[in-house]
Formats: sequence, C-alpha cells, structure tokens
Amino acid sequence: MSAKKAIPYKIYLEESELPKTWYNVRADMKNKPAPLLNPGTLQPMTAEDLAPVFCEELIRQELDNDTREYPIPQAIQDFYKMYRPSPLVRAYCLEEKLQTPAKIYYKFEGNNTSGSHKLNSAIAQAYYAKQQGLKGVTTETGAGQWGTALSMACSYFDLDCKVYMVKVSYEQKPFRREVMRTYGASVVPSPSDTTQVGRRILEQFPGTTGSLGCAISEAVEVAVSNPGYRYVLGSVLNQVLLHQSVIGVEAKTAMDKYGIKPDMIIGCAGGGSNLGGLIAPFMGEKLRGEADYQFIAVEPASCPSLTRGKFAYDFCDTGMVCPMAKMYTLGSGFIPAPNHAGGLRYHGMSSILSQLYHDGYMEARAVEQTKVFEAAEQFARVEGILPAPESSHAIRVAIDEALKCKETGEAKTILFGLTGTGYFDMVAYEKYHDGLMSDYIPTDADLEKGFAGIPKIDL
Amino acid sequence: MSAKKAIPYKIYLEESELPKTWYNVRADMKNKPAPLLNPGTLQPMTAEDLAPVFCEELIRQELDNDTREYPIPQAIQDFYKMYRPSPLVRAYCLEEKLQTPAKIYYKFEGNNTSGSHKLNSAIAQAYYAKQQGLKGVTTETGAGQWGTALSMACSYFDLDCKVYMVKVSYEQKPFRREVMRTYGASVVPSPSDTTQVGRRILEQFPGTTGSLGCAISEAVEVAVSNPGYRYVLGSVLNQVLLHQSVIGVEAKTAMDKYGIKPDMIIGCAGGGSNLGGLIAPFMGEKLRGEADYQFIAVEPASCPSLTRGKFAYDFCDTGMVCPMAKMYTLGSGFIPAPNHAGGLRYHGMSSILSQLYHDGYMEARAVEQTKVFEAAEQFARVEGILPAPESSHAIRVAIDEALKCKETGEAKTILFGLTGTGYFDMVAYEKYHDGLMSDYIPTDADLEKGFAGIPKIDL
Repeated sequence: MSAKKAIPYKIYLEESELPKTWYNVRADMKNKPAPLLNPGTLQPMTAEDLAPVFCEELIRQELDNDTREYPIPQAIQDFYKMYRPSPLVRAYCLEEKLQTPAKIYYKFEGNNTSGSHKLNSAIAQAYYAKQQGLKGVTTETGAGQWGTALSMACSYFDLDCKVYMVKVSYEQKPFRREVMRTYGASVVPSPSDTTQVGRRILEQFPGTTGSLGCAISEAVEVAVSNPGYRYVLGSVLNQVLLHQSVIGVEAKTAMDKYGIKPDMIIGCAGGGSNLGGLIAPFMGEKLRGEADYQFIAVEPASCPSLTRGKFAYDFCDTGMVCPMAKMYTLGSGFIPAPNHAGGLRYHGMSSILSQLYHDGYMEARAVEQTKVFEAAEQFARVEGILPAPESSHAIRVAIDEALKCKETGEAKTILFGLTGTGYFDMVAYEKYHDGLMSDYIPTDADLEKGFAGIPKIDL
Repeated sequence: MSAKKAIPYKIYLEESELPKTWYNVRADMKNKPAPLLNPGTLQPMTAEDLAPVFCEELIRQELDNDTREYPIPQAIQDFYKMYRPSPLVRAYCLEEKLQTPAKIYYKFEGNNTSGSHKLNSAIAQAYYAKQQGLKGVTTETGAGQWGTALSMACSYFDLDCKVYMVKVSYEQKPFRREVMRTYGASVVPSPSDTTQVGRRILEQFPGTTGSLGCAISEAVEVAVSNPGYRYVLGSVLNQVLLHQSVIGVEAKTAMDKYGIKPDMIIGCAGGGSNLGGLIAPFMGEKLRGEADYQFIAVEPASCPSLTRGKFAYDFCDTGMVCPMAKMYTLGSGFIPAPNHAGGLRYHGMSSILSQLYHDGYMEARAVEQTKVFEAAEQFARVEGILPAPESSHAIRVAIDEALKCKETGEAKTILFGLTGTGYFDMVAYEKYHDGLMSDYIPTDADLEKGFAGIPKIDL
C-alpha cells in the first residue's frame, strides 16, 4: 500500500504549471471535421456569414483547423486561477471497494459554482465578447449548468447576459435560475413573448413547456436584432472544444509529472465539450503516432447519437436557424424519452468527435440510466463526491472496465472525466432511491422517425 | 501587481504537509471552559455519566483540558486526503473590486459534498464509533449540513446512521434529505412516532413542524435505548472544536509557508465549531503570549448569543435532556424570528469560545441578514464561489474591515473562514433577489423571555 501511495490522492498542479495555451486537436487530424454549411446555399459558412451571430475571435477559432496552440489570454489565465487547476484524483477508495488491480484516476471539474467544466469555455467566450466591445451575450440553457457558467463569466467582465431557459426547467429548477440571478443574469422562460419566434410558438402551442431548440432560436434572434449583442453556445462547436482542452492539458501535465500513462480515457458525451477537452492532447499523440490510448465516449442508451446515429449533415437546432454541421446525429427532431433524467440529451455530436469516431480513433458505449445512477451512488459512497448524472455515465464505464481488470488480472490505468456535481439533480436521485426510475431504449422505428428529419444533401 | 502575485491565488498544502495532529486549545487556556453539569445533581459530568450517550474516546476528548496535541488516526488522515487540504485563497479579485490596500485571505471548506466544514468532525466521530464496535449513531439535523456530513462519514465506515431532521426542513429541503439517502442514511422527520418523546410532542402539538430541540431529544432517546448506538453532535462540544482545529492548523501552515501573518481572523459563529477550529492555533499563540491577533466572531443580529446573551449555565437543548453547559446563551427557549434565513440559529455558544470571549481574547459582532446577503452576492460575483448564508456573515465583516482599511490606508492582512457553499440555500437567495427579505433584531423584551428560561444556579 505504501509504495502505491507514492501517488497522492489528489494531484494539484502549481500555479506556474497551469496551461498557457489551448491545444487545437484539428491541427493534427488528417481528416479535418467537415465545415459548417449555410443551410440556404449549402456552401461552407464564411467568417462574414457568421459575424452577425458570433464574436469575431471566436469565429476565427471556429474556422481554424491549422493552428496547433492558442495562447490563453492573461485575463482568462487569471480567472482560471480562481478555480483551477482542477484536481486529478486517484480513486484509491473506489479501487479498494472494487478490489480491482486497475488504477483509476479522475479529473474533477465540479469544484466551482457552475458545478461543471462549462465555465472553462464560458469565461473565454465572455472575454472575447468584452474585447470586441460588445454590451452583452445571449444564450439558451436547459438544466442550467451552461447558463450558470456564462452568468458567472459575464459578471466577471461586466457584460450583460440574457439566458433563455427552457420553460419546464425554469419552473422545475428554480434554484439554478436563482444562481444565475445571483450573478446578475436575466433569465427568461422560453418560449417567451420577448421574441418573434417565441410569440409565434406560443400562438401555435399555447401550453408548451418549451424545448432547447426553441430557446436557441430565441437567443439567436435577440443576438442578431440587438446591436452590441452576440450569441454564445456551450458545447458542440470547435471553439468550445478548443477552450475545454485545458482539462486535458492539465490532466496530461499532472500525469506526466508522476510518470503515469493512461491505458484508456473515458468521458461522457452529450454535445462533446467535456470529452473533446479531456482527450485532446492524448488524442494528439495518437494522431501523430507518438502514443496509443483507448478512448471511450459514453452516451445514454436513450439518446445514442454515436452508437446508433447517422454520420450526416444535419441541423444543429430544432428550429433550424443555425448552420448545418456534419456529425453523428439522431435527427434534429429527435427528443429523448421524458423519463431520461441524466442530461446528455443533444441529438447530435461535435463534428470533431464525430470525425474521430468515424475514422476509428475512438469507441463509444451506450449505458442505461438505472445502471448509471447505481454507479453514481456507489462512487459517492466511497469517493465522497456526489456526481452529476451526466458525469456518472463515465463512472459507469470506468467501473465496468475496472471490474473486467479484476477478472483478467490486468492492472490497467484508467482515466475518466468527472465533469460535475449533482447538487441540483436531487429530483433524479430521489426517483432512483424510490425505485421510480426506469430505462428506455428507443426502438429502431423510433430512431427512423428522427432520421427522417435529416436533410438529404448530396455534396 | 506582479510582486503582489508572488502569493498564488490558492495555496494548497502538499499531502505530506497535512496536519498529523489536532490541536486542543484548552491546553493553553488559563481559565478552562467550565465543565458540563449533570442537570439533576449539578455535579460535573463524569465519563461514566456520559457513556450511555457518547462514544468512549469522544468522551475522553471532551473532558481532556490538558493534552495539547492529539494524533489524528491514520484512517481519518486517509479520509481527509480525499477532500483536504482545503484551499487557502487570496481574494485578489475582491481586493481589486473594493480598491482596498488590505490583503484578504479565506480558508474555503466548501469543496466536499457535505458542502461545509462539518465533515471534519463527522468522520472523526464515525471513526471512533466504529472503533468502539458500535452498530451505528444517531443525530439531529436542521437544514441538513451536519446530517449530510455524518451520512457520508458513516457510509465510509459502514455504520448505520439515523438522522432526525426537523420536520419543516425535511419537507422544505427535500434535496438535502436525498443527499443523505444517497449515502444510505435513514432520515426521519421530527417529531416522529418512532420515539416516546416524539409521540408525546405529537400528541401535545398535533400540527407542529418540529424544532432542533425536539430532534435532539429523539436522537438521544434512540441512542440510549438501542444497544450498539450512540448519539453524536456537530457543534458546540469541545471534541468538535478539537477536530475542527484541522482548519486552523492547515491555514497556519499555509500562511507560515509564505511568511504571511494575519492581523485579524474572522469567522461566523453559530455553535462555534468553524470559528473555534479556524482560530485554534492562532489563539494558542496569543494565549501563550507568542503573538497577537484580533479575533472576530460574527453572529446574526437576530440570534445574538455573544453580543447580547448571558454567560451562564444553561441547557444545551430545548428538551433539556442533555447536560448543562456554561456559555453565552439566549436561553434554551429562544427561537430566532422565522424570517431569519441564514443559519446560526443556536441559542448558545461553545463553552471554549464563550470563555475566551469572556476573558477578552476575542471580539464579537452582530450583523443583519440583508447586509449579509448583499456581501454574499458581491463576493460571489467577483470570487466565483456561491457562499452559504452562514459563511456570508464572515464575508460581511471581512468586507467592512477591508473598507475601513481603504479609509485609513492600512494594509491589514485579513483571514476569514468561508465555511461552505449555498447550493441548497437558493430559497433564501430568491427572497433576497425579490426584495422579500427583511431584518429582525430582537427587542430587549424578546430577549428577557429567553433569559427567563435560564436556570438559576448558584455554584
């Protein structure tokens, strides 16, 4: 045990060891992710096309497949110092509980008030908006993690922040809403009468409780129709994965410091921001042929975009107002069953991760939610951290792999991303404790309905 | 700025620098805290008297005014490694916002799932219960921080954990309850029909929503009437302050490492567990005449035990089933106004802190809750952490003192305790945002009613 404990429970980097650059994995990809398309012309979106919606520097980052290292501006580095480095934790207690020879590590991104990794990109996007002299930004949020992160970032830079929150979440998750208000954001339940698209939807569906697609449409409308505003997004986009590479760069620096090489890296995947960030520098080594790692994306069985989706150009939002992206998708009309509690509900997947998966650099697994909550509770009891349902998808597969090691006797080194905490997800935990949680796997017929909405594009 | 930044934003100790011993401040007190009294005989409680209620080793710690250093058992040190060291943070952003020459530091205890410092003592108490071969422990909880911490600790040591939760909190704070259930605790709304005292109270007051005093009585009854069970408590007691000294020892080690000497140390005070722990080693130096520090206890104006209470022997619980303690007290029948949201509702104060305050080693301030939430929001917006209302009492005074420095030009070094996070307190934040929060200061006549319940004891 004492030799084993040569690795501390938690590895914190010194402030001087924190990343100075983000790593752009696209620079090392032979097959680049396909460009965003203008849905009208089917031509790749240019910087000019995107300028009314997004911030200039963020557009540059979005379109740049070549620059390998992006310097992190000093103001963002300073903000990172308030809540980073995030700890790289050796899960000694979990290993002991499982009686596995595997060595399990997790990178824990939940120790900030937004409760997740989302803050890493929120602060970057707010910074570039401020640099551009904007008054504020708009966005949408579902459960509220991204909205909270953006509110914190905007508060720091004195930017106005308008969040369109899916109405059902606004009403059922008042606490997240209050956190956003604490940071000075204005939070509007969507659909609302503050936008044309919102009023139209309210007329058509008077009792609707909203959807992410509708909230995106409202946020985009407000951004493009108010001078000094732009729209920002918390996942899926290339720029977001670039910012989130801070997770992976930190993790790799910490592991290198102790001579640890992971055999497999596991992360949950909704839009892909966490997984893409965590694996970035490791994937870079694999792409350059310098090292090999097994990468596993974990998604809910009820929203299986990688494991059962199609690799195709599709709309990014239900309202079809955004550019089209080539990705693994279930169709922009696909909505997971209402009994699905664990986040990761997005119908598509980051173009970068989709391409890497398509090219065989990454695997994917789909897991059922009761098994996810079982892993969450097991983890909480021995490691002390109450994990977010999203993060618990990765825990599930990490435990499964550690148990396989127990059978084979292999002492594999496993790294997984623990993206956040579950403090605002206790309704789901309650369902699980009360035996009211069920699993749902869409039938092929269910999926076909979603696929039918994917546009037929022959490029 | 660059010279200033020689001190990092966050100071983390290495695992090897973590405390190996708790510090018992009583060893350095000339006037020891008065002993607990048997309410029947008015004689000091002996270890035998206490044995049916408390664990053996904890009784030894409770009664030991002499041993200066207590070795922290290895199993507890190992658990501490999962969530400690807690960071000592330099509040650069707050300093800049306030434009103060003061240097502000805070010791942040909120980065664990219990959301506060309570876990430091919970794990120790659970450990000693396990060592004694007990089956489980009982306790009460109000808002749920202590109950959560104890649930986590019991889960780690496979102990049964029965929590009596004040009924109004059980119903209004279902999320804390679910966190406890996640850790396998059984949570019972109090008063309940599972105890004699509970049934009696339910008969007398059929619609009652419970009180901490009643929950204590139920928890104690269950402990003494079930073989293999003992009762544990999260604050007030000497043993708890001993365990919480880990906060101060870590803080002092981190400050010494960088040659920082605080001029003043500020903490919120309810029962005194956090403040007593934070100041312990610094107070030791002051008591031994080796250094001088200004200590400030901050309490709510609506429950002002130090600033307006009496220093007298009183009952520790409303039900009067526990031993009597000499302390600053408002009377065991005192209940803060219902509009008071910010915790720290206990009618008394740790005997150790009461004695130190009485002897002039410590100051106390009472602050009103709207000013507390104003400070909480200001802090959250620049430092990124959403503070618990309790912790925000300390923030309020730290900001006040930093603003005084701005006027006088003094560059004082301020250390305060940030005990926890406010994720489960959003109802109170919502009230504040909506302008529905009011202040309440009890009149002298209000206080006299409470004082009338303090027993007249002539020793």
